[in-house]
Amino acid sequence: MTEKKLNFSCDYMKGAHPDILRRMAETNMMKTPGYGLDEISEAAREKIRRSCGCEHAAVEFLTGGTQTNAVVIDAFLRSYQGVIAAETGHISTHEAGAIEAAGHKVLTLPHHLGKLDPDEVRQYAEDYWNDANHEHMVMPGMVYISHPTEYGTLYTRKELEDLRSVCSQYHMALYLDGARLAYALACEQNDVTLQDLASCCDAFYIGGTKCGALFGEAVVIPDPHRIPAFFTIIKQHGALFAKGRLLGLQFDTLFTDGLYERIGIPAVRAAQQIQKALVQNGYQLYFESPTNQIFCVVENRMLEKLGQKVEYSFWEKYDDSHTVIRFAADWGTTREETDELIALLASALLF
Amino acid sequence: MTEKKLNFSCDYMKGAHPDILRRMAETNMMKTPGYGLDEISEAAREKIRRSCGCEHAAVEFLTGGTQTNAVVIDAFLRSYQGVIAAETGHISTHEAGAIEAAGHKVLTLPHHLGKLDPDEVRQYAEDYWNDANHEHMVMPGMVYISHPTEYGTLYTRKELEDLRSVCSQYHMALYLDGARLAYALACEQNDVTLQDLASCCDAFYIGGTKCGALFGEAVVIPDPHRIPAFFTIIKQHGALFAKGRLLGLQFDTLFTDGLYERIGIPAVRAAQQIQKALVQNGYQLYFESPTNQIFCVVENRMLEKLGQKVEYSFWEKYDDSHTVIRFAADWGTTREETDELIALLASALLF
Amino acid sequence: MTEKKLNFSCDYMKGAHPDILRRMAETNMMKTPGYGLDEISEAAREKIRRSCGCEHAAVEFLTGGTQTNAVVIDAFLRSYQGVIAAETGHISTHEAGAIEAAGHKVLTLPHHLGKLDPDEVRQYAEDYWNDANHEHMVMPGMVYISHPTEYGTLYTRKELEDLRSVCSQYHMALYLDGARLAYALACEQNDVTLQDLASCCDAFYIGGTKCGALFGEAVVIPDPHRIPAFFTIIKQHGALFAKGRLLGLQFDTLFTDGLYERIGIPAVRAAQQIQKALVQNGYQLYFESPTNQIFCVVENRMLEKLGQKVEYSFWEKYDDSHTVIRFAADWGTTREETDELIALLASALLF
Amino acid sequence: MTEKKLNFSCDYMKGAHPDILRRMAETNMMKTPGYGLDEISEAAREKIRRSCGCEHAAVEFLTGGTQTNAVVIDAFLRSYQGVIAAETGHISTHEAGAIEAAGHKVLTLPHHLGKLDPDEVRQYAEDYWNDANHEHMVMPGMVYISHPTEYGTLYTRKELEDLRSVCSQYHMALYLDGARLAYALACEQNDVTLQDLASCCDAFYIGGTKCGALFGEAVVIPDPHRIPAFFTIIKQHGALFAKGRLLGLQFDTLFTDGLYERIGIPAVRAAQQIQKALVQNGYQLYFESPTNQIFCVVENRMLEKLGQKVEYSFWEKYDDSHTVIRFAADWGTTREETDELIALLASALLF
Repeated sequence: MTEKKLNFSCDYMKGAHPDILRRMAETNMMKTPGYGLDEISEAAREKIRRSCGCEHAAVEFLTGGTQTNAVVIDAFLRSYQGVIAAETGHISTHEAGAIEAAGHKVLTLPHHLGKLDPDEVRQYAEDYWNDANHEHMVMPGMVYISHPTEYGTLYTRKELEDLRSVCSQYHMALYLDGARLAYALACEQNDVTLQDLASCCDAFYIGGTKCGALFGEAVVIPDPHRIPAFFTIIKQHGALFAKGRLLGLQFDTLFTDGLYERIGIPAVRAAQQIQKALVQNGYQLYFESPTNQIFCVVENRMLEKLGQKVEYSFWEKYDDSHTVIRFAADWGTTREETDELIALLASALLF
Repeated sequence: MTEKKLNFSCDYMKGAHPDILRRMAETNMMKTPGYGLDEISEAAREKIRRSCGCEHAAVEFLTGGTQTNAVVIDAFLRSYQGVIAAETGHISTHEAGAIEAAGHKVLTLPHHLGKLDPDEVRQYAEDYWNDANHEHMVMPGMVYISHPTEYGTLYTRKELEDLRSVCSQYHMALYLDGARLAYALACEQNDVTLQDLASCCDAFYIGGTKCGALFGEAVVIPDPHRIPAFFTIIKQHGALFAKGRLLGLQFDTLFTDGLYERIGIPAVRAAQQIQKALVQNGYQLYFESPTNQIFCVVENRMLEKLGQKVEYSFWEKYDDSHTVIRFAADWGTTREETDELIALLASALLF
Repeated sequence: MTEKKLNFSCDYMKGAHPDILRRMAETNMMKTPGYGLDEISEAAREKIRRSCGCEHAAVEFLTGGTQTNAVVIDAFLRSYQGVIAAETGHISTHEAGAIEAAGHKVLTLPHHLGKLDPDEVRQYAEDYWNDANHEHMVMPGMVYISHPTEYGTLYTRKELEDLRSVCSQYHMALYLDGARLAYALACEQNDVTLQDLASCCDAFYIGGTKCGALFGEAVVIPDPHRIPAFFTIIKQHGALFAKGRLLGLQFDTLFTDGLYERIGIPAVRAAQQIQKALVQNGYQLYFESPTNQIFCVVENRMLEKLGQKVEYSFWEKYDDSHTVIRFAADWGTTREETDELIALLASALLF
Repeated sequence: MTEKKLNFSCDYMKGAHPDILRRMAETNMMKTPGYGLDEISEAAREKIRRSCGCEHAAVEFLTGGTQTNAVVIDAFLRSYQGVIAAETGHISTHEAGAIEAAGHKVLTLPHHLGKLDPDEVRQYAEDYWNDANHEHMVMPGMVYISHPTEYGTLYTRKELEDLRSVCSQYHMALYLDGARLAYALACEQNDVTLQDLASCCDAFYIGGTKCGALFGEAVVIPDPHRIPAFFTIIKQHGALFAKGRLLGLQFDTLFTDGLYERIGIPAVRAAQQIQKALVQNGYQLYFESPTNQIFCVVENRMLEKLGQKVEYSFWEKYDDSHTVIRFAADWGTTREETDELIALLASALLF
């Protein structure tokens, strides 16, 4: 079985927080209407609205991140608009063209450890509207960011507000992909709350799949009048989940007693310990990460030996003899696993 | 709570067969690779291949029916091709334009209690290719059928073979939507086996959501060379499930010890008892249905009273004073519920 | 050469009205900006605005009918909306799925000699919004009609107003395809003016290709705020014509001294003479047509003999031994040609 | 009138070569079948096939460049594939997202004065197929190049062959945009013939709009079995031209007596004289261009003064005080105009 070996390859290898499974068993034979029209989903929506401080928000539950991005982006854009994203954004690289499949170009800007620079976004929008040929070009209609980013880095509240300001100035929607949002909320350096997201973004999603749910992402649209036919848009994308209560139940659990805001703590703690151990043992960090993903540069000759002891994730080529790899912790990472990895990193075995 | 009242409104109101929940709990903290690349999913694929008698088939797990139809149809069709379906086919009516969203026209033909007539399909294809202007028209590239149909009716093996023959003659793929397939397999009148599907169809899906799973549909493509990039197509449609093992686990359970082939039996038995009771109590059947969905014509003045006692489903207007309604039983329908409904139908209360 | 034989097969076989060719030659070496930003195009726009009585209308020139339909329909519809059309509408049958290629379903209703019945449109919209499952269905966002229709028939002003009223009530745009509009304007029975179109429709196009231009259609959007990025939408559809002045020049010519409103007169006169001759010679009309296309039912055994003398157009099968054929006259049809055809129809040669 | 002022802003400001207008007038009242099925179009096809040395090629005529790119790229790619292009490629920048509108991502690589480097294309394809996550990414299915490029630069035959080789190795189609092809063929440095294009490319188009036609581009697909339903694909894109003979006639003229291969000569000669004058008068070239477009860097303070004397084209910002501008000559550029511009560039007036 694959579970025996140390495994820090990603943060979606396990099932769900035990409370979720327990409630799923308890409610299994209940009969409820489909498509999220049930009481449990409605309760979850209410809890999310309260946590985000926006009582009128539309909240809908989808099953995965690529699907959510495709649905939300298509909902906000007109047919001739594109979405600005960092060149490392998930929609730019690893969604198999899902955004383009709905007819929208991803307009890429350079990334700064996964982040967009608000000034560069402003410049891009300004250049577009000033270009004498802009009517021959794709109109930017949205800015896509992720928090934490694909590099585990965080936007500050100030940066979010700056992006909000650019977006307002140039009539673009601001959309935040929170696939790993719990790991931001669990991080001391983070100064962005759910309420901040609700006040800065036109849409964002609260990630479940990587943050303690079996599966599921909760889309929040603070002003529901923006997208009046959102249910139909979800259905048209094949993203309407028949037994919607399964999604509602998971988010109801995650938003009971503040579970979502603390579920990422063990992961961030473990990751930071691993990062510290890497430094102490002479490994070169790719950069210092604040959240649950740690990136380091290793010599290629070490990769195989390391791989025999622990599953990690290939990130990218660094140079001809080095590679960037990633270790990811998750909500369920135990102290024992972490200690074992730290011991391994300290041992002479790898060299 | 909604569960107290008698509820025969549809067949996707409950959770899953208990064996599924149990195994989900047992494996919850396992770490496995994502996207269906895990051992459990692979085991499920093997069992399905064996049940279908096609050891080389591609088997992929998706989360819902509309999604599955959109993915499979888009995978088979070229950009300029459309799909033939009955005017009552799910893709023609209740998928919010998901097929068109990928650029493909649904070419509708009249239905015969939900079924396509192979001769009418042949005529359509022949007319298309004979039309002097056919290059200005949408080329039919696939035939879509469902089994059971949206009316709960069944194709015979002979009809399937005839459709296969038309499709081969006119270079169309044959695709079968098996959202409720377990209820066909549980039905005495049914003479179509999983092996027959594998030998007649270019693709079909084995429904889980309505047939004992929490969610999930298993796509079977007997000749995997037909669609070499199927994984990427799934991803592009936002339909790649991160923790794929959850899907694998459900189908592994359903295909252990022949569970899938008998799980629909209680539903069909209950539905047939209800149908019989309707007749005995003087209700007018819309038509005689062989599976788990029963359709009857009731006077409009009765609808409200009936609705106070039992949840049913509005089907369609019959005439100015009558309506067609549907009762659906499912894999978990109990004898008690059925008896209660039958007693209700016999009682004078409704009149 | 194909031109020697009598040819009434369609109305787009010739080049352009001589005035157009002359002006094209006169302006050939002028240098003007591209994409319709030139003075000639602007002059044409002004003339069209004046003829339509709407001084603020957006007027854009495209090259063909299918292209125009695809662009306008995509411009007005949101991604989840479809367009209502008669089952015989050009977009339903002979545009190779161009509407679906942009993601929109064509929602077909029965035709009445090519026309939609306003009451049936109202019923459809009402049924859609009343259907408990309408959020799972394609939302009708537009009504497409043609005038004259594909059968050469005409809407009355009253019918147009009724359609306008339905569209307003159900928030649908009304779009009129005027591929053959000049032949309506040239027809005595027609009571629909360009001004009526501008007051009833959200968009319509004035056909050039079949009405005296070499090519080109003029889209009129009475309220230009409806579609603010229309130029970009045209470009995105590959429909922006580089040397836009060629289109402008043609419409400027057609809208000088009322040419467009009288250019169809010889065609309608010829067609009506032919229709009369058909009746007098004992042919069975398919129905009585008021415009430049005449439909009659002929015995299959006559088809070949007739085809040796005159090119006509196959329309549709009537019964096992009869076929509906079409004769079309155009703006350049001469009295000689017409007389020759009438003599032919009267002659015993065909029998 | 805009024609009085010197105008070197682009190469599609005029009408057509006089032979084309003459023949258009001569054939104006001919009746021919539509959609390119006429004898004139067939004759043009034959001449193009002969010039390209591929007697079985499919040759189809479309009306403009963006349209042609959208149609050909969509014809070759499967729904999940993208097209590699230089970041400066026309499809990457100035086609308003037409490629994405059909669902395909444009995969950009750095440009080298508008050109792709075959080694970089090879590396990209290799990296894609070696990436463990490539199934989550857009599969490159085609390479798009232009000749001359958007910068007026030229591929060598060797480079084309290298691209052919990469494409064959990685199962990508090679497609060449020849919007300005005549200006390559008219250029001494060019060693790429029409036959070379036919032997290296899976598809290419011979530009008419910028090269002496009123409008029109001729798509050549050397192996027509690659795209069996090309006519329908064209129709679906709204790109089927009703009076196809107008396109055929233009290309028939351009391919009579080798006109196309010499029509660009005056333009290239004029441009080269202008380029030489720029250097002699101390202007800074952006780079040395071999064809009909000349790029130079001018101080911003000169732009307005220059603009009063001659229309040029803004190209891009160079630095805070300089701008890149473009002068374009065309097939009809006269010696007088050229001399006048050269005199202007030499005069003190601008400084």
